[in-house]
Amino acid sequence: MTLDPGAEARHAPAPETSGKLHHRIGPFEPELGGYLPEVTLAYETWGELNSARDNAVLIVHALTGDSHAAGDPSAGYKRGGWWNPVIGPGRMIDTEENFVICSNVLGGCSGSTGPASKNPQTGRPYGMSFPLITIRDMVRAQKRLLDDLGVKRLSLVIGGSIGGQQTLEWAVEFPDFVDRAAPVAATGALGPQGISMSEIGRRAIMADPHWQEGEYYGTGRTPDDGLAIARMAGMVTYQSAAGQWERFGRRPARRPALHRELGGRFEVESYLHYQGRELAGRFDANSYLYLSRAMDIYDVAAGYDSPEEAYSRIQADTLFTGISSDWLFPAAEVRETAEEARIAGSNARYVEIESNNGHDAFLKDWAELREAVGPFLEDGDNG
Amino acid sequence: MTLDPGAEARHAPAPETSGKLHHRIGPFEPELGGYLPEVTLAYETWGELNSARDNAVLIVHALTGDSHAAGDPSAGYKRGGWWNPVIGPGRMIDTEENFVICSNVLGGCSGSTGPASKNPQTGRPYGMSFPLITIRDMVRAQKRLLDDLGVKRLSLVIGGSIGGQQTLEWAVEFPDFVDRAAPVAATGALGPQGISMSEIGRRAIMADPHWQEGEYYGTGRTPDDGLAIARMAGMVTYQSAAGQWERFGRRPARRPALHRELGGRFEVESYLHYQGRELAGRFDANSYLYLSRAMDIYDVAAGYDSPEEAYSRIQADTLFTGISSDWLFPAAEVRETAEEARIAGSNARYVEIESNNGHDAFLKDWAELREAVGPFLEDGDNG
Repeated sequence: MTLDPGAEARHAPAPETSGKLHHRIGPFEPELGGYLPEVTLAYETWGELNSARDNAVLIVHALTGDSHAAGDPSAGYKRGGWWNPVIGPGRMIDTEENFVICSNVLGGCSGSTGPASKNPQTGRPYGMSFPLITIRDMVRAQKRLLDDLGVKRLSLVIGGSIGGQQTLEWAVEFPDFVDRAAPVAATGALGPQGISMSEIGRRAIMADPHWQEGEYYGTGRTPDDGLAIARMAGMVTYQSAAGQWERFGRRPARRPALHRELGGRFEVESYLHYQGRELAGRFDANSYLYLSRAMDIYDVAAGYDSPEEAYSRIQADTLFTGISSDWLFPAAEVRETAEEARIAGSNARYVEIESNNGHDAFLKDWAELREAVGPFLEDGDNG
Repeated sequence: MTLDPGAEARHAPAPETSGKLHHRIGPFEPELGGYLPEVTLAYETWGELNSARDNAVLIVHALTGDSHAAGDPSAGYKRGGWWNPVIGPGRMIDTEENFVICSNVLGGCSGSTGPASKNPQTGRPYGMSFPLITIRDMVRAQKRLLDDLGVKRLSLVIGGSIGGQQTLEWAVEFPDFVDRAAPVAATGALGPQGISMSEIGRRAIMADPHWQEGEYYGTGRTPDDGLAIARMAGMVTYQSAAGQWERFGRRPARRPALHRELGGRFEVESYLHYQGRELAGRFDANSYLYLSRAMDIYDVAAGYDSPEEAYSRIQADTLFTGISSDWLFPAAEVRETAEEARIAGSNARYVEIESNNGHDAFLKDWAELREAVGPFLEDGDNG
């Protein structure tokens, strides 16, 4: 049974957070070119680093997520931390035993350096002059943050979707730094249908005249319509057909219309409109372009002769979690990724969450997530 | 094996066409309100109506299709008729034995009255003052055309997608006029995921400033970007994930870029961009809004107490064809529709096309289409 995440998140006491912190990791050279003279990462921590400095857990957020993985509802985060039900004292990711860190990704817009940040060389926001960022860049930036925080090893890195891609890349890029890696709903390379949906969203943003070639900062106009449409396309990939039938069916909308109607609205349309507006109110459109593109172009084999060579680098125990109804990263492809990693010699396992909630199940199906990932975290001492 | 439709269409001699004709069916009252003082339908015919006037076959086109179901390539139709491989002398739909008719739907933009047509009461194009059109309206308009052409009975009505919805509605709305109905890749009601994809496209059109609340006619600006994005969203629903892996995978684009790149392009993106531009060059954006909306709101049970009551009206032999990899009208839902119709007392059968081509298989997999539907057309004399 799927629990109501909102209810659980609201009623369970959240672990004490450091609050949002900012750390300068210095200049950064993205792997595909360009140069960032100064990079800051926003992050939060829960729990304490032990004396061996090896009890750290890195949580990696999803596309439009942020560093606030856990925390009580507050003015800035009215729904609380986005992974509250699995992070805290005695929870799946135990903040009594672990030093838990979550940082906003490089290229993001929730405190870390991204396209909306001021370019120190020009004094103006980067906009589209921001260099292309890859999943590997995000991981390398996180590594520098962890080094600066004095973390010696990661007991665990875990995340879903683009967070799962980074989790996998962590195990490949820094093999001797990671004990356990648990990519959820992610593979070594996104398929063409996912890329298509992603590109529909980017085209909508770039076709919005308020986008202004990405130079909208300070103009008083932002490409809200385009970003809202991108979000709508994203939301469709995060949910399954069966889940949409269950949740919305063909019921008429009850909320007031946000957009012109053509013969009434369906509830699913109203839902998408509100999701679109919500994201447009809190997210930077250029960040959306860069982060969604990083998801598309990620290929675990990039820079290696083959996927096998990449996977053979992994020293961590890895658990790949697929979601039965996911069509962005289909379960069969996640399973195949685990199998490829195993064949390449790594200790890789696969587990599947049975859910109608589609890709988003890792942000909703708490009991199933605990059941899938929990045993992996309790397995012996890999540290 | 899937044949190359282009090759087959190019090399087989097409049946002789009447050429595009136009017929005024007079004033029309759409079922959901509004009034059209004068409706014209564009249509083409192949073969001859027999003396009993009961050898007519109605072909119903898909969303962005037109009346040119069969015909050699020509200036106006450089790829020839869109269903050439199954229409002609000795083909599945035999023009030696049948009087074959295909008309552009009401609300369309290829010769029939639609939003781009001049409102005789104002002398200006309807734009968004065009009344909402339903699948039933399209069928009722076609019926008046057939009556005027002297057709007494339809030996067969057949079409895919929105054409399949109309085919089903024909059997329900005019039970004693139809001998056989063969809806392909269609159900009694589109699911919420299909509606979502449809709405993403409409939002993109309506967010395009060139749309101008639909009053773009004569302004020299048309919402090409919005319509292209709508087409991209449509194309994703017409193809399957497996088919996209086969056809595009993650290969880089080879064609010149139509839009700004973010770190190169994938072939699937390039394909979608070209499909988008192609449609924007030949289709009216307001028509796209109205026709896609008709697909969404179609419910076979509308006006009846239940789907059973609607299905129980059917007198025709019906063959529902599902496509294994279709996610717009999933095969399981098509099968269920056939089952519901059968339980309601109609002579309904189901057959499935095994294909990776997704929803679009009915416009590509000629051998499979013939195998699925051919035997149904050869079954005895149902007239």
